[in-house]
Amino acid sequence: MIPKIESNKFKVALIQMAMSEDTNNNLSKAISWIENAADEGGEVICLPELFSSQYFCQKEDIKYFNLAESIPGKTTKAIGEIARKRKVVIVVPLFEKRAPGIYHNSLVVIDNTGEIIGLYRKMHIPDDPAFYEKFYFTPGDLGFKAFETSAGKIGTLICWDQWFPEAARITAMMGASILFYPTAIGWHPHEKLEHGKAQFESWQAIQKGHAVANGVYVAAVNRVGLEKLNDESAGIEFWGSSFIADPQGIIIAQASAGKEEIIFADIDLARIEYVRQNWPFFRDRRTDAYDKISKSFLDID
Amino acid sequence: MIPKIESNKFKVALIQMAMSEDTNNNLSKAISWIENAADEGGEVICLPELFSSQYFCQKEDIKYFNLAESIPGKTTKAIGEIARKRKVVIVVPLFEKRAPGIYHNSLVVIDNTGEIIGLYRKMHIPDDPAFYEKFYFTPGDLGFKAFETSAGKIGTLICWDQWFPEAARITAMMGASILFYPTAIGWHPHEKLEHGKAQFESWQAIQKGHAVANGVYVAAVNRVGLEKLNDESAGIEFWGSSFIADPQGIIIAQASAGKEEIIFADIDLARIEYVRQNWPFFRDRRTDAYDKISKSFLDID
Repeated sequence: MIPKIESNKFKVALIQMAMSEDTNNNLSKAISWIENAADEGGEVICLPELFSSQYFCQKEDIKYFNLAESIPGKTTKAIGEIARKRKVVIVVPLFEKRAPGIYHNSLVVIDNTGEIIGLYRKMHIPDDPAFYEKFYFTPGDLGFKAFETSAGKIGTLICWDQWFPEAARITAMMGASILFYPTAIGWHPHEKLEHGKAQFESWQAIQKGHAVANGVYVAAVNRVGLEKLNDESAGIEFWGSSFIADPQGIIIAQASAGKEEIIFADIDLARIEYVRQNWPFFRDRRTDAYDKISKSFLDID
Repeated sequence: MIPKIESNKFKVALIQMAMSEDTNNNLSKAISWIENAADEGGEVICLPELFSSQYFCQKEDIKYFNLAESIPGKTTKAIGEIARKRKVVIVVPLFEKRAPGIYHNSLVVIDNTGEIIGLYRKMHIPDDPAFYEKFYFTPGDLGFKAFETSAGKIGTLICWDQWFPEAARITAMMGASILFYPTAIGWHPHEKLEHGKAQFESWQAIQKGHAVANGVYVAAVNRVGLEKLNDESAGIEFWGSSFIADPQGIIIAQASAGKEEIIFADIDLARIEYVRQNWPFFRDRRTDAYDKISKSFLDID
């Protein structure tokens, strides 16, 4: 008898939430959602990008640097306590204060003991109208990361990273079973009618592509709600639609565009192995021919 | 006044066809389809992978090496003539005989003068039940390629290459406006009912992902029809569905699953520039952090 691949699963939960101006309230709401996710069997729980505040990068204003906090700090302490109490792994995005003048868009991975076992700093930093992240965040200097948690090995990336196949590839090559993308993406209200559908579909398509290319689960965790930093701006309507794709790129969990909610999926290591045996892309990579990827463009090559 | 990006277009045509056992017949049919494509304004015309024969890789049999031909050779001469006569660029996949014991799954680009201006040898070689390509084809040794044609700059890849984001990325970085993927992909008849839909969707999703990641048009050109090399085998049902995606990953031309036909699209350089200005991924690539892509896996890193 040829042995079968043994099923080996862990359950992930994505918390899609809306943020208010009150950071204490955002933190306590996140903890309450974590309790719900744990109640329903979530073993690895992921919060949205910069979950403890509104998306302040809509404006360039130095006052917002005061939202940054050290690691460890107040947020990691509070989330660490609930992780330990409920014995769950939690992916915690936060605005990291590293040193005066050096701030990162980061996340920590807290294991089910409450300990911080990983730190990832967003590698690709956007800068678009109302997404002025280059003003706030020093690009990550830790490279791409996967972390061995008590539940399984997970890869972590943040929002804009999702547009870069290199980031997904390297993180998957580190042995991650799932790539988490805490995200803050939405529509400019004046663009939504004309471009909204195409923008959303591009965003989902490229992440399905990462799942297929790497035979890995992909989880995007977005916020919801219209956030206006002041009355002059139209704000951003965050489009929610958090989802989980399986290693063949099939959407296996999908949240709404506008509601706070949790979505769940089982990450099945046997499914990853089965998909990769059927489509053995890792076997056939031309590792002798990819060095040009480290250039910006090849016009001057 | 801020100047607008000037529209600058060329029209591509994908020939989705079925192949018989008679290679002469396949060639003359291809030429007749090229005439039709040129009649309707096609300026760059692409044929499917290995268009001059049935998909012989369903079996490992040395007799099929006799289908290979040199470059230049009979096929490039015949297609060169029609290219010159109709003043069109043609992407011509063929089974290349390079030297005794060295054969490639290749394509040539023939310019509108009838001259061969480019050669690409498939870099990623599959080997799956009924797709025994590693038996026939030496992996390409020319790297990834883009070619300046009289109509515009095009990138060329072949079938299995489509599952590898590195191939799309490097070819786009060479300045290609469109990535052509001549293809021979289909269903095992016994798998179609259970897995067919998911397989097709993965195939289309990953290529839409390449379009989005690179802000480039993507064209997949498949064959159609059930091909059985003998009565013992169930054969392969080639799924057609040739398509063209725009630089945002939107499908702008889509063929049927089973019919011979031509699909067309305008490749608009202004659209590429507009999409890349809106989503400036090339600006933000972390070229300092991608070197690990040249490893097979990172367990031993």
